[in-house]
Amino acid sequence: MMHKTELTVGQNVTGQALTVPVYQFTGNQPDAPTLYIQSSVHGAEVQGNLVCHYLLMAFQKLADEGALLGNITIVPYANPIGMNAKSVDYTSGRFDPVTGTNWNRQYHDFNGDYATLATAYKALSPEAIKASFCETLRTSLAEKIARPEGLTTGQGMVMRLQQMAIEADLVLDLHTGPRSARHLYAAAYAEDSARALHIDDIIIMPNGFDGALDEACFVPWWSLSLALADEGITFDHGIEAFTVELGSQEQIDSDDAAEHCEGILNWLMLKGVVAADCQNPTDRAPNNGPKYGVPLEDYITLYAPVGGLAEYLVAPGQTFQKGDCLARILKAENIGTDQAFHAVIAPADGRLILHFDSASLYQGAELCKFTKIA
Amino acid sequence: MMHKTELTVGQNVTGQALTVPVYQFTGNQPDAPTLYIQSSVHGAEVQGNLVCHYLLMAFQKLADEGALLGNITIVPYANPIGMNAKSVDYTSGRFDPVTGTNWNRQYHDFNGDYATLATAYKALSPEAIKASFCETLRTSLAEKIARPEGLTTGQGMVMRLQQMAIEADLVLDLHTGPRSARHLYAAAYAEDSARALHIDDIIIMPNGFDGALDEACFVPWWSLSLALADEGITFDHGIEAFTVELGSQEQIDSDDAAEHCEGILNWLMLKGVVAADCQNPTDRAPNNGPKYGVPLEDYITLYAPVGGLAEYLVAPGQTFQKGDCLARILKAENIGTDQAFHAVIAPADGRLILHFDSASLYQGAELCKFTKIA
Amino acid sequence: MMHKTELTVGQNVTGQALTVPVYQFTGNQPDAPTLYIQSSVHGAEVQGNLVCHYLLMAFQKLADEGALLGNITIVPYANPIGMNAKSVDYTSGRFDPVTGTNWNRQYHDFNGDYATLATAYKALSPEAIKASFCETLRTSLAEKIARPEGLTTGQGMVMRLQQMAIEADLVLDLHTGPRSARHLYAAAYAEDSARALHIDDIIIMPNGFDGALDEACFVPWWSLSLALADEGITFDHGIEAFTVELGSQEQIDSDDAAEHCEGILNWLMLKGVVAADCQNPTDRAPNNGPKYGVPLEDYITLYAPVGGLAEYLVAPGQTFQKGDCLARILKAENIGTDQAFHAVIAPADGRLILHFDSASLYQGAELCKFTKIA
Amino acid sequence: MMHKTELTVGQNVTGQALTVPVYQFTGNQPDAPTLYIQSSVHGAEVQGNLVCHYLLMAFQKLADEGALLGNITIVPYANPIGMNAKSVDYTSGRFDPVTGTNWNRQYHDFNGDYATLATAYKALSPEAIKASFCETLRTSLAEKIARPEGLTTGQGMVMRLQQMAIEADLVLDLHTGPRSARHLYAAAYAEDSARALHIDDIIIMPNGFDGALDEACFVPWWSLSLALADEGITFDHGIEAFTVELGSQEQIDSDDAAEHCEGILNWLMLKGVVAADCQNPTDRAPNNGPKYGVPLEDYITLYAPVGGLAEYLVAPGQTFQKGDCLARILKAENIGTDQAFHAVIAPADGRLILHFDSASLYQGAELCKFTKIA
Repeated sequence: MMHKTELTVGQNVTGQALTVPVYQFTGNQPDAPTLYIQSSVHGAEVQGNLVCHYLLMAFQKLADEGALLGNITIVPYANPIGMNAKSVDYTSGRFDPVTGTNWNRQYHDFNGDYATLATAYKALSPEAIKASFCETLRTSLAEKIARPEGLTTGQGMVMRLQQMAIEADLVLDLHTGPRSARHLYAAAYAEDSARALHIDDIIIMPNGFDGALDEACFVPWWSLSLALADEGITFDHGIEAFTVELGSQEQIDSDDAAEHCEGILNWLMLKGVVAADCQNPTDRAPNNGPKYGVPLEDYITLYAPVGGLAEYLVAPGQTFQKGDCLARILKAENIGTDQAFHAVIAPADGRLILHFDSASLYQGAELCKFTKIA
Repeated sequence: MMHKTELTVGQNVTGQALTVPVYQFTGNQPDAPTLYIQSSVHGAEVQGNLVCHYLLMAFQKLADEGALLGNITIVPYANPIGMNAKSVDYTSGRFDPVTGTNWNRQYHDFNGDYATLATAYKALSPEAIKASFCETLRTSLAEKIARPEGLTTGQGMVMRLQQMAIEADLVLDLHTGPRSARHLYAAAYAEDSARALHIDDIIIMPNGFDGALDEACFVPWWSLSLALADEGITFDHGIEAFTVELGSQEQIDSDDAAEHCEGILNWLMLKGVVAADCQNPTDRAPNNGPKYGVPLEDYITLYAPVGGLAEYLVAPGQTFQKGDCLARILKAENIGTDQAFHAVIAPADGRLILHFDSASLYQGAELCKFTKIA
Repeated sequence: MMHKTELTVGQNVTGQALTVPVYQFTGNQPDAPTLYIQSSVHGAEVQGNLVCHYLLMAFQKLADEGALLGNITIVPYANPIGMNAKSVDYTSGRFDPVTGTNWNRQYHDFNGDYATLATAYKALSPEAIKASFCETLRTSLAEKIARPEGLTTGQGMVMRLQQMAIEADLVLDLHTGPRSARHLYAAAYAEDSARALHIDDIIIMPNGFDGALDEACFVPWWSLSLALADEGITFDHGIEAFTVELGSQEQIDSDDAAEHCEGILNWLMLKGVVAADCQNPTDRAPNNGPKYGVPLEDYITLYAPVGGLAEYLVAPGQTFQKGDCLARILKAENIGTDQAFHAVIAPADGRLILHFDSASLYQGAELCKFTKIA
Repeated sequence: MMHKTELTVGQNVTGQALTVPVYQFTGNQPDAPTLYIQSSVHGAEVQGNLVCHYLLMAFQKLADEGALLGNITIVPYANPIGMNAKSVDYTSGRFDPVTGTNWNRQYHDFNGDYATLATAYKALSPEAIKASFCETLRTSLAEKIARPEGLTTGQGMVMRLQQMAIEADLVLDLHTGPRSARHLYAAAYAEDSARALHIDDIIIMPNGFDGALDEACFVPWWSLSLALADEGITFDHGIEAFTVELGSQEQIDSDDAAEHCEGILNWLMLKGVVAADCQNPTDRAPNNGPKYGVPLEDYITLYAPVGGLAEYLVAPGQTFQKGDCLARILKAENIGTDQAFHAVIAPADGRLILHFDSASLYQGAELCKFTKIA
């Protein structure tokens, strides 16, 4: 059965509690992996809420059928400040309007002494290691939240989300790009598993913390497993955490959401969170097309070389060749002449993942991002 | 020959002059009608600048061929504050960020005593009336600009544009909607002429001033002609001023700009600003499709009945029937249930002209606008 | 006894009801005038909320003492969107961030046919006129709120406040200026009564509607009384509605709030809302200083003649003479020279009421406002 | 003689170059230390521009008198985007409105291999080390600026400022706090020298890079000198770089600027940039009061424990004791009761350096910052 509660993550000027809805399901197999999904930590990236709606519908059906194995927590609408921050038509919910801090760079960094921990854990069973380290993470986070000087607005919000996320084996943080193809970020060790989500483009991340939820979830476990490997112990923690970029911001689309749900359920079947035969295979998109996975260092940003108005010539999801014109920028100072456009040329073969969500660019705006392909 | 100057329309905090580029052409027939075009008084509505680029290219070619008859003034990039006002990816350039005032509601209102003027003009020739009234408008505007207490930032900008516009017979103010089909606003007396612009949807405006440039240009002349009609005199002033909504904001598109240029040149041929045979007719889109013209009172706005995330189901430019679902709004409080969507039903047969440029809506956001059709 | 409820005035993107707190007291004399006070319709103007806090404390004490005669409704925190709209440190809550519309220009305009009403009311008693006209206003407003196409976000909010305000005889809308002296706006007929509020500077308003709450409350009654006067009938409606500017925005101050409470209670004693002897006279500030009242046309705005950084030389509340330097603007283009400052000279004798709340000015920013004094 | 040029640091949407003014003086002693000062990298922090104006006046006089020894570069109005970013009355110029990145956290990090450099420099003279390392920094920065994918808008701006700053021995980056007392940040090794600036409160910084200009200037030299010390070599680089917080944002004040100029000239006399006797000592404020210097770890931020409206009870610059009430926050949910205020109690003896520049607080807003005193 679906259980809904409201979690308070802050308080506004007029005294209202800032709350996020928390939907929980109890699986029927206590040992099955557990799942945490959240959406819209960036306020303009709303498609994930629609995906959550369809997932909630699906999980209720699965629960009715006895096919829900692991415990599940879903937190859509995870950023009540960001989602309500309108600026003219748009939603300026990418960063705290007071501090400028990206909402998705404020998670607690458990920056532990992994070597010492590995030594201490050496003699323990994998289950005991997992339980002990999870308690260590939990305590570290709780202490940060309770520190006497208080937390920033953003920390107060996202660290309470993090408290739920660190309890799960599997974590999805649903985002979107600006004008964007579907893609996701996965830790190098989890790339193969991420393929089950049926998203063509994968950015493969090294071990390191830059403040985002996926990193906050997988970096401690990966780091611990590396330290244990130095002690000669193979530790399979089973933790996977992906930032999934569902497409473009500022829009919702039910057909697109249905495809994302299908991919997520496929992954959950493989991981044993839902029963493996719970979906009619004929309903599933085959996703047999080409797969693209590139290391983070081959995920390249091009910054606007001049100020002006961009006409984007390659769409997100398209493959291009070195020398192709990705966009041309109309230069105000040259209009009415044949020097009006500045061409932005692809410096390598690649796939366009996303571009800026407006024609209007200052010099240095993040024009587009692409993955280099061999 | 194209002549370019920079007109100062304000000054910013750091002392830079705020300037707009002014492109001018002298026609080869002194009596031909004159033209004024501007674009981007709303900063996010940038397609007009690309249209201006292609028009400048076309006018230079026409001038070379001796086919440019009337004087022409083109002012792209007309709002240097609004166009540079970025907010996250977007451009928050619809209103002055200090005062909230819509940039396109700040033109000077010549609110003259038309009855007295008509009496005074009774005995004059049409040419003399035109010259005298134009001087009256010019003086009224100059006095407003020079008033001792100063002007607001927005007035200081747009009234200097207005000084150029009131000198022309034909005026186009190039805008766009948010997510929008092409449409234009025309004074009732000029609807037939506006058809030459090859835009299907026309909103027909009554005589009255609400602060926009088209009104600032046509209302005084229309009012004067009505007052002269009361005196039994038919006065054909020849003034036409249209606000043209080229499509959607935050984007530029060359194919689309080419079609708009074709329409504008077609209108200019009919009005005698450029030679009637200057375009190869086979290049022209026929535009023989249905035409829609509705009075302003049948141009209806629907406001979001609830807060939430809208999935727009009817695209701008589409015709629908009473009872169709125009959009459905995902209600956060109901997700995971079959009550998750609030359907917005068409209250009449119509054509969808535009919708909000984001899924994210407070209750009362301008969800969409449509024209009622009989 | 104080009775608190929450009134829903909108809904945000994440489905939360936007609510305002409503505090009500029932007086012990049914015929006593009734009072409505609200604060912070402009989100940065927060001092009124503190004044409301102290008023609520005072009214509870008066109620306990049997000194509360009329019914009272207090709505602090009246704009939940505007008060929570932070931008860096500040509060950008002066206008709807989506539309730019000033929150305090969206009240319903009852634009009735007063001559016809006066004819219809001719034979009625003052009480009957009052009851009938109040019902007419109530119906007009309710119909506007229920119109099929919906209301804008701002209308949806302020018209629900207006529904409470039009039920009261006495209305205070608590605002502040930017960097400002205390002042208030009063209809010409109510200037003497307004003096009881112990605020030195009064702007005297003509009859006319520009969208604000005070006008929405007094214009219909004033207009009706003028129409009745044309019929030879003197109609004393007893309605007073003032916009009170408590001082500067973005700050609260308890000492200052105590003085404002004292003035408000003094006015309420004179009007018979609270018992005339309910305050210890020795507690009261005498307010025997000079009083300034000027017609709206003598309340002058000076716009920044150049862009730059203003050093304000005359403080709000100070009297100055023609020729005094009110401010000097540091011009970036001239620094390091003795032409660095542009002096802004007083064009007349006056009192400085307020100035812009930042040194940084575009040309045309509202530099300061002053009242001309004879 | 003062030499003024304009440096281009970017380009906006409408094609205008974003420029900053650069004022330069050539001293009459080639070996004298050189000075670089900039102001307003944060757009709302404008007082430094007025200080620059008075410094420019002073330096011209000193140059005329032959008292200007070292070369000087002054860059006021250093952020043309941030200074022009108005939001209602205020200036939202603390971070890039597109990315949210703090303008003062984008300088290039020369993150060199100091141990290897120290080995290579071992045999060189101090002058040769300085010249070589300066060239190394210069090259590293130039390469970053020229990288093929381009720079962000903020990097493009501040790294061009950094190119001037790294050429100077002495660097001042003029900022202000929100509502703030004067204070400055100094590297631990330069605390004594910083005292000459006549600012009571000094925050003493450890060696490390967090993106600000002062760090970008002193960290490489400090790091190199530490590495050379490991080699047994004492290297006195003579580099000093301070972030000076002149007081509060959004305002300029000539009296205050005069005091800051006096302090800056005092420091420059001690460092030999201007002649030691160039000022009449009797003109100088003695600044014999108490001095406060605390390590960065004792500079404490308190975050708003609840949302609400703050009444600040201790002013910037005031000393307080543990247990004092620094501010009280009016809680909307409790007004009209004696639980209306939440008291914020000082957790230690200290000096209040700054507080938030608005009463209106979300939970987690940076309420105030103080230094702990023993």
